[in-house]
Amino acid sequence: MRYFRLSLTFLIAIVPVLVCSQQPSKQEFRKQVREYRIAHEQELFNELVEWLSIPNVADDQPNIRKCAAWLKSAMERRGITARILETGGSPVVYGELNVPGANRTIMFYSHYDGQPVDPTKWIDMEPFAPTMRPGKMEAGSTEPKPIPLPKKGEKINEEWRLYARSASDDKSPITALLAAIDAVKAAGLNFGANVRFIYEGEEEAGSPFLQSFAEKNRSLFKTEVLYVCDGPMYFNNQPTLKFGARGITTIDITVYGPNVNVHSGHYGNWAPNPGIKLARLLTSMKHENGNVKVRGFYNTVTPLSRREKEALKTIPSYDEEIKQLYGFAQPEGRGETLMERINLPSLNIRGLESAWVGPQARTVVPAEATAAIDIRMVKGNDPDDMVNKVIEHVKREGFHVISEDPDQNTRMQYADIVKIVKRGGYPASRTSMDLEISQLTIDALSDYHDESVVLIPTSGGSVPLYIFTQILDVPTISVPIVNHDNNQHQPNENIRMGHYWQGIETLAALLVYVK
Amino acid sequence: MRYFRLSLTFLIAIVPVLVCSQQPSKQEFRKQVREYRIAHEQELFNELVEWLSIPNVADDQPNIRKCAAWLKSAMERRGITARILETGGSPVVYGELNVPGANRTIMFYSHYDGQPVDPTKWIDMEPFAPTMRPGKMEAGSTEPKPIPLPKKGEKINEEWRLYARSASDDKSPITALLAAIDAVKAAGLNFGANVRFIYEGEEEAGSPFLQSFAEKNRSLFKTEVLYVCDGPMYFNNQPTLKFGARGITTIDITVYGPNVNVHSGHYGNWAPNPGIKLARLLTSMKHENGNVKVRGFYNTVTPLSRREKEALKTIPSYDEEIKQLYGFAQPEGRGETLMERINLPSLNIRGLESAWVGPQARTVVPAEATAAIDIRMVKGNDPDDMVNKVIEHVKREGFHVISEDPDQNTRMQYADIVKIVKRGGYPASRTSMDLEISQLTIDALSDYHDESVVLIPTSGGSVPLYIFTQILDVPTISVPIVNHDNNQHQPNENIRMGHYWQGIETLAALLVYVK
Repeated sequence: MRYFRLSLTFLIAIVPVLVCSQQPSKQEFRKQVREYRIAHEQELFNELVEWLSIPNVADDQPNIRKCAAWLKSAMERRGITARILETGGSPVVYGELNVPGANRTIMFYSHYDGQPVDPTKWIDMEPFAPTMRPGKMEAGSTEPKPIPLPKKGEKINEEWRLYARSASDDKSPITALLAAIDAVKAAGLNFGANVRFIYEGEEEAGSPFLQSFAEKNRSLFKTEVLYVCDGPMYFNNQPTLKFGARGITTIDITVYGPNVNVHSGHYGNWAPNPGIKLARLLTSMKHENGNVKVRGFYNTVTPLSRREKEALKTIPSYDEEIKQLYGFAQPEGRGETLMERINLPSLNIRGLESAWVGPQARTVVPAEATAAIDIRMVKGNDPDDMVNKVIEHVKREGFHVISEDPDQNTRMQYADIVKIVKRGGYPASRTSMDLEISQLTIDALSDYHDESVVLIPTSGGSVPLYIFTQILDVPTISVPIVNHDNNQHQPNENIRMGHYWQGIETLAALLVYVK
Repeated sequence: MRYFRLSLTFLIAIVPVLVCSQQPSKQEFRKQVREYRIAHEQELFNELVEWLSIPNVADDQPNIRKCAAWLKSAMERRGITARILETGGSPVVYGELNVPGANRTIMFYSHYDGQPVDPTKWIDMEPFAPTMRPGKMEAGSTEPKPIPLPKKGEKINEEWRLYARSASDDKSPITALLAAIDAVKAAGLNFGANVRFIYEGEEEAGSPFLQSFAEKNRSLFKTEVLYVCDGPMYFNNQPTLKFGARGITTIDITVYGPNVNVHSGHYGNWAPNPGIKLARLLTSMKHENGNVKVRGFYNTVTPLSRREKEALKTIPSYDEEIKQLYGFAQPEGRGETLMERINLPSLNIRGLESAWVGPQARTVVPAEATAAIDIRMVKGNDPDDMVNKVIEHVKREGFHVISEDPDQNTRMQYADIVKIVKRGGYPASRTSMDLEISQLTIDALSDYHDESVVLIPTSGGSVPLYIFTQILDVPTISVPIVNHDNNQHQPNENIRMGHYWQGIETLAALLVYVK
């Protein structure tokens, strides 16, 4: 009996270890990660606060380099071989974690720099002094007020939010991945694949050196997939995978009137008005139903695959909620959903300017009227080709198109003159859901969380994924973990703590199950 | 012989006096005025410089009152009974010069306040330190450099220009009229009519108290005509009489998209874009030929009389020069002249604004797009009626029209919402050329100068003459004396000295021949 009881005690004690080494179920593994997190909540939280306390605006190079050094050290603590690599601008922090016997290599991308800050707009805090609030501060509100940062032994409520620059965009995915590594190791599980880490330091400055760095360091990018840990989860906060992003190119269209603003009394009704000409030109570009009338605008779109179309259908619609949130009754289009519209190229008038309006308005016939336009592209569209189609449209409307302000001869030769300034851009990317690595990634997260995974063929926002997909031939899949209402790019950026904890779980699943 | 020679000498000496008292010809009188001016050039110039040295921006009341006191004193030196009258804002300086036996009373209006100044934009000078240059400083140039103010005995070249705030708008017509009084007296001639003087001190601030002052002081305005000495001469610098001015009213039209600027990646192509809706609405308002498509826009125009049409035909055209000057090949309209277009109401897009353009542009679907519009009116048009016609047009285009920003209910109820903000205005004035006083005024200047008089039925710029013509029932005729290229309302305002001298002659003719 005594022997038996001892054995039973022994068995009870060793069963979890045996189960672990013999692969727990996904659900069980998720619980282990969660338990690890709960047990180490204070250290994980402190690490995030420390990370967010280092200023990270790309033009503040001394602090950017402090960030890089901190990150290298944090990676090395996890046994990652880390290096700081110069790019010409902010350095890249690169890391490798090799797994004996692994058949695959996967790579994670995030950026450790953040958007510039205007400290006067941050409410009751400094942008680099991470501050906890017991909930979300709605736009225009200053409530809830900050609470002290939680101390050891104090449970962190999932609804609390940590406010700081880059709390969501994009420092927290970096420490969440490091925490996920800790949790995998603590669970005694093997990593499914060799892991590579690439952390950029000037994404918010437009990634000026990313392409040249990638081209010069192709050997670092020998990976089957690049997981982009950036951007927010889907509106309903279900686990989200994004297989692509729209491309973008922008142009400014300027129409000319007299060569200076002239008195609208002395000359109004006779001096040509650039505002009405611009209005007429813009009107010619879009149908009332929102479709773009520029010839060939939709011709180069790569159609969605069967699997992508199915994914679109299963994405829960938040269209009505978004209409309520942003206060409009009728979207553009002919009744398509937001997700359907995002899978088409767009021509968006992002700005208009001509002289002044409101109290500053002056009684002039303005010299110029300018429309700023962004063209979002989907797979198949080429930025130069799309802009050229717009230019051809403008010519067909009877305008003389130039790229610099007109001289007097040009002015006297053409009644209708348009300057079109191109501002560069890049194409869309869309990783096929049919790829083996896509299916492996989807499978890794399926039946892991309580909620199903939202599969988005193309996200609306633009990310220069083409550098990876087109130049390096590495497919990308975005794995966002942060809340969509995080005030990204704005003052009072934040992360909801529940999202941070869930993000650790999501990333741990990829580390173990993609193999 | 000696007697004869004496007599002859005596005769030669007294002939001019005899001729004067027996009415010299107009040409002879003009020469006398000119000789008086040449003989007293230095004093007249010094008086102008002293006058321009007193700052005169309407919100600087201590200096405005210094101006009023200086002016009262200068008028009294000419035997004018002058008073400073309070209005609630800047005081009016009022004066009377009664002429025994006169059958008529005429009145001169100018304003002694000037436009606000930005001293940093005045080149090599302070705005209230009058500065001579030996010619015109072209836009963008800093040449010719200032020269010392002319000293006694030094001839003032007619091409020289005196730079100072209000050099043309509108202090110089005031001292030119005082100098004309001196010249008439020196010539020993009688004034043709009783003369009244009304000098306003806040025209550039929008004449906030002029109407209430006029209504409370109707007895001061017992005059047959109000000569408005303000604004520039016609382009060719020929003597100019303007019988009216367009009225003006302004509106701001705001079209709504989402209730905040939203990300053009996440929502572009689906969130409604206010810029394209505004473009479509503006396009609906005007034909490509420049004519306004708003229903009834031209219905209330009072047709020009036979005499006005004839006057229009005889105005020398400067259309080609203006097109060259302002660098445009094709005016609005169907080939009408500038003068013809000015005698029609206009709808001018004076400004556009939606989010940002150029380097500041952000990738958003803007929350709003606004067009600032000014409507210039001719005789017959009523400001409220014209704005209402625009509002009816906007409604016919399918927009829900409001006057305040929409609330959430309104946003969710209407797909297309427009806010129209009215900013007040006033109607046009046009004194008939058929009036006896109009003919007397035209006759007074005919065959007086070497050049013929340009008769303008309606000037393009707006002046609130309706206060005189409609509320006081006093016809107005504008008698501009300053050069058209005077940088009115801008830095580096100036008057060409030849214009100042000629202005004294013009005003002297009215003082003598309108009787």
